[in-house]
Amino acid sequence: MKIGFIGLGNMGAPMALNLLKNGHSLQAFDLSEAALRKLADAGAAACASPKAAAADVELVVTMLPAAAHVRGVLTDEQGVLAGIAPGVTIVDSSTIDPASVQAFAKLAAARGNAFVDAPVSGGTGGAAAGTLTFMVGANETLFADVEPVLRAMGKNIVHCGDTGMGQVAKICNNLLLGITMTGVAEAMSLGATLGIDPKVLAGIINTSTGRCWSSDTYNPYPGIVDTAPASRGYTGGFGADLMLKDLGLAVDAARSAKQPIFLGALAQQLYQAMSAGGQGGLDFSAIISLYRSRASQ
Amino acid sequence: MKIGFIGLGNMGAPMALNLLKNGHSLQAFDLSEAALRKLADAGAAACASPKAAAADVELVVTMLPAAAHVRGVLTDEQGVLAGIAPGVTIVDSSTIDPASVQAFAKLAAARGNAFVDAPVSGGTGGAAAGTLTFMVGANETLFADVEPVLRAMGKNIVHCGDTGMGQVAKICNNLLLGITMTGVAEAMSLGATLGIDPKVLAGIINTSTGRCWSSDTYNPYPGIVDTAPASRGYTGGFGADLMLKDLGLAVDAARSAKQPIFLGALAQQLYQAMSAGGQGGLDFSAIISLYRSRASQ
Amino acid sequence: MKIGFIGLGNMGAPMALNLLKNGHSLQAFDLSEAALRKLADAGAAACASPKAAAADVELVVTMLPAAAHVRGVLTDEQGVLAGIAPGVTIVDSSTIDPASVQAFAKLAAARGNAFVDAPVSGGTGGAAAGTLTFMVGANETLFADVEPVLRAMGKNIVHCGDTGMGQVAKICNNLLLGITMTGVAEAMSLGATLGIDPKVLAGIINTSTGRCWSSDTYNPYPGIVDTAPASRGYTGGFGADLMLKDLGLAVDAARSAKQPIFLGALAQQLYQAMSAGGQGGLDFSAIISLYRSRASQ
Amino acid sequence: MKIGFIGLGNMGAPMALNLLKNGHSLQAFDLSEAALRKLADAGAAACASPKAAAADVELVVTMLPAAAHVRGVLTDEQGVLAGIAPGVTIVDSSTIDPASVQAFAKLAAARGNAFVDAPVSGGTGGAAAGTLTFMVGANETLFADVEPVLRAMGKNIVHCGDTGMGQVAKICNNLLLGITMTGVAEAMSLGATLGIDPKVLAGIINTSTGRCWSSDTYNPYPGIVDTAPASRGYTGGFGADLMLKDLGLAVDAARSAKQPIFLGALAQQLYQAMSAGGQGGLDFSAIISLYRSRASQ
Repeated sequence: MKIGFIGLGNMGAPMALNLLKNGHSLQAFDLSEAALRKLADAGAAACASPKAAAADVELVVTMLPAAAHVRGVLTDEQGVLAGIAPGVTIVDSSTIDPASVQAFAKLAAARGNAFVDAPVSGGTGGAAAGTLTFMVGANETLFADVEPVLRAMGKNIVHCGDTGMGQVAKICNNLLLGITMTGVAEAMSLGATLGIDPKVLAGIINTSTGRCWSSDTYNPYPGIVDTAPASRGYTGGFGADLMLKDLGLAVDAARSAKQPIFLGALAQQLYQAMSAGGQGGLDFSAIISLYRSRASQ
Repeated sequence: MKIGFIGLGNMGAPMALNLLKNGHSLQAFDLSEAALRKLADAGAAACASPKAAAADVELVVTMLPAAAHVRGVLTDEQGVLAGIAPGVTIVDSSTIDPASVQAFAKLAAARGNAFVDAPVSGGTGGAAAGTLTFMVGANETLFADVEPVLRAMGKNIVHCGDTGMGQVAKICNNLLLGITMTGVAEAMSLGATLGIDPKVLAGIINTSTGRCWSSDTYNPYPGIVDTAPASRGYTGGFGADLMLKDLGLAVDAARSAKQPIFLGALAQQLYQAMSAGGQGGLDFSAIISLYRSRASQ
Repeated sequence: MKIGFIGLGNMGAPMALNLLKNGHSLQAFDLSEAALRKLADAGAAACASPKAAAADVELVVTMLPAAAHVRGVLTDEQGVLAGIAPGVTIVDSSTIDPASVQAFAKLAAARGNAFVDAPVSGGTGGAAAGTLTFMVGANETLFADVEPVLRAMGKNIVHCGDTGMGQVAKICNNLLLGITMTGVAEAMSLGATLGIDPKVLAGIINTSTGRCWSSDTYNPYPGIVDTAPASRGYTGGFGADLMLKDLGLAVDAARSAKQPIFLGALAQQLYQAMSAGGQGGLDFSAIISLYRSRASQ
Repeated sequence: MKIGFIGLGNMGAPMALNLLKNGHSLQAFDLSEAALRKLADAGAAACASPKAAAADVELVVTMLPAAAHVRGVLTDEQGVLAGIAPGVTIVDSSTIDPASVQAFAKLAAARGNAFVDAPVSGGTGGAAAGTLTFMVGANETLFADVEPVLRAMGKNIVHCGDTGMGQVAKICNNLLLGITMTGVAEAMSLGATLGIDPKVLAGIINTSTGRCWSSDTYNPYPGIVDTAPASRGYTGGFGADLMLKDLGLAVDAARSAKQPIFLGALAQQLYQAMSAGGQGGLDFSAIISLYRSRASQ
């Protein structure tokens, strides 16, 4: 299939490479010439604008940092909507707010194009390995159309409901993730301070009602899970500033829905404190540093 | 073994019955004559005081509502310490603060008695079925001594470390449980408000990084987990007022340890609001009512 | 002076009327024809667009609900920037985020126009009486220019610093106001529950270190301050949904500045709960209902 | 009047000296011999126990760190209740929880003694100068009896209601104080980060709806109020650990009353974080350090 691909950053570049590897032909665009050249070297056609990348393709994929970038890429004079043929679907894998998805879908529909939200989880590792999870918001027909293409980049392609529901799923999951990780940080720190062996405590939690992914797979306390960032200085993994961004999306979505999220809003502030302290580049499990290292600061 | 058993409430009574069933002989005491008579009918010797129940036994087990009751049962004129023989171990299965455990262990040691903390999880159902989990704080020798007796009442007998660490394990697990349950309530409510099918959302969370016991086994949103209290009007299960009590113990322990627990303290207030609203008798997963039913109140 | 005035809502209309009363000549615009006609009846020239209202005037004043409206009014094809003469200053009295102010100032500067932020406090009462407080962000020269015009609509014209600082002042004050009001609600509710006479408690607070405007002038407990909304069913005053909007601006500004505001974020969620409960139209001091009426709900 | 005085710490010693200066005769006790000797040098009779200090006096005053100490001083074998004559009133100026006050009043009543709670504000400076504020819980008759004695140690003697209401008043005021101070810290920090001159911001707040004692008299931002601890390195004043203790009393009282206090519980955790960071000895306005110095830590 001939695909237009816009956004060749840490996530987008390996995703585009996987499309190439799976036999698709690509028209690519990125603001960074270096990123664009790298993909051209791998066989993609380098384009001068989103408009050019979207011309004469069967599908457009975008992977951008935030809603403002998606808006620009779509609506600028040299944007996707200026070049795309009617009937061609746009799949946006950026993580953005559901309200923007609805707005973009409306803009696209006015030109005769469908807009599918398909944010991912799995990080740069999953993007490179082609094992991402895609959370897709689309009607049944559209989902059936895009699913085979997404399978070239991911392992789990989950249909979350209609337009926007892919973002809702991702935002709600990451809201809960930010809360459980901070909760595990509190429970492990309190236990350690009170004298229990952290490994014993983690063992009890993991076979009891406190059990969660943040405890049994990604425990923030050093030395509990060998493969977790906590056991290698909180490097790699899912950056705290990305968690902060996602909690911000959750708080914004909650605001527009007038739905209070007390713990989520507090977790956002805690991640903000972590980021303000210069640690936003660490893995998000390093939130435990707010609880553990104070006395020694 | 001849055992003194003090505290025949909703939890204590079935625990004592299981000891009888397993061939132990019991000297029982409770302030309620009805509770006492019921156990006497089952074969226990009814005693007039904790002192009497502790006389000439090989082990004493206490199961009481709070630390103040344990203190009274131990130190009153007609208390356990006035009747117990030196060398006999006291196992306290109440859920109390670790500092009180240390204090009681010191009082017991002064009389030549060991004091073991062994709080349980599993609820009244687990107490009746003999499938409780015991979280035990004791040195290796003591643990080996009491473990066979506890096995008559429970399935998992977990050695958590030295004196007090049973309580630490329980408090930290339940702190995390209160946080994850409230977090799931927020994520599910936000998702539902934003329009995603709650079953789809739960399915995504349960196979993703938000996964936790509160989501996959005990989801607070009605209709997600058939066996969860949410699917039967929040009856049965683990009462919200008990969760409120345990969060209070966590906040107190954190205070004495000067260990901040931001989310835990906020969860405590949310459970307090729920209790103040007259819903403290419901299952603790009904915390979701703070998020869902406001508009219709 | 000939002034273009855009935005004739609950606040804008009385402000515009005061400009007329003080001898200024007005070119007015509003999307609502009724609002526009009302001002025309009072002597203003009714215009067909912001562009028309801004043509041939010496100053433009805008009073709009949110940043998105200001952006539209400025940049639409029929917007202010399409009609305004170079050198004419735009004074925006809307309450919006400081980052948008900077963006709008940049857009205006590109056309040779200055942009001054001048949000107000004082409510519709103050707008009608001409006793508003204006918090002005502008350099010294610009402040001197606009101050006489603002004086026709307000009593206190406060110079808060350069562009954007008017909004910063308003946002920070209202952040603190949301926190102190909620704090007074907590202290008064706790005291009343514990049995102290609320009037006695308020008297002690007001002469002690807890003293604040929310306690001595606008106490949320009924019957303490005769002139406060609490003594007339929480009607009139400053609406809870407006406080919710301002807390949202504070949380957003804090996010962009990576500055944690723990209590502010929690207050936002509490106002969100109040609004979700259908009480967003009441005065913001009705936040005390979250604390007081639960048991009787 | 002949008075028994127990507790000669930083607060108690200068209070006792003021009683001596006002012509009262004192029987004093403290666990510290040095403290006791110092008061004996000033003219008090040094006693060997609370019992001895309470013998043959017309009034007993106690000033102790926490409820546990008051209980001990009252009920120990060598305690006040063992030595005091029937009909003599006990005035406790310690800051403790209202529930303990009720319990102590009951114990005293059983011996024929009245128990009055009279916690103070004003710090060690006020204690030395005799300008303390006393918040008194007592019936009308008792209040009239003790008021003249308290006037020897304080300037404002406030009748807060019946037994326990002195503590309720102090706890509620200090709960609000902890919230407003943290709120001012948030508003000032956010404003400064966003670029407004902190003096200008404080000036606006102090003449607007955010006005409070924590802002206009004791502003936590350095350089705003010359006489505030913030302008002398946060030394002197009211220690953060004392605020932490009082917020703990508020949270405990709220728990027993099932009254949620969301902001208060969060403020407690913030003060706990400050204390855990080794800054509990600073003035409580140094809570602003949680907001300002992160990036530079």
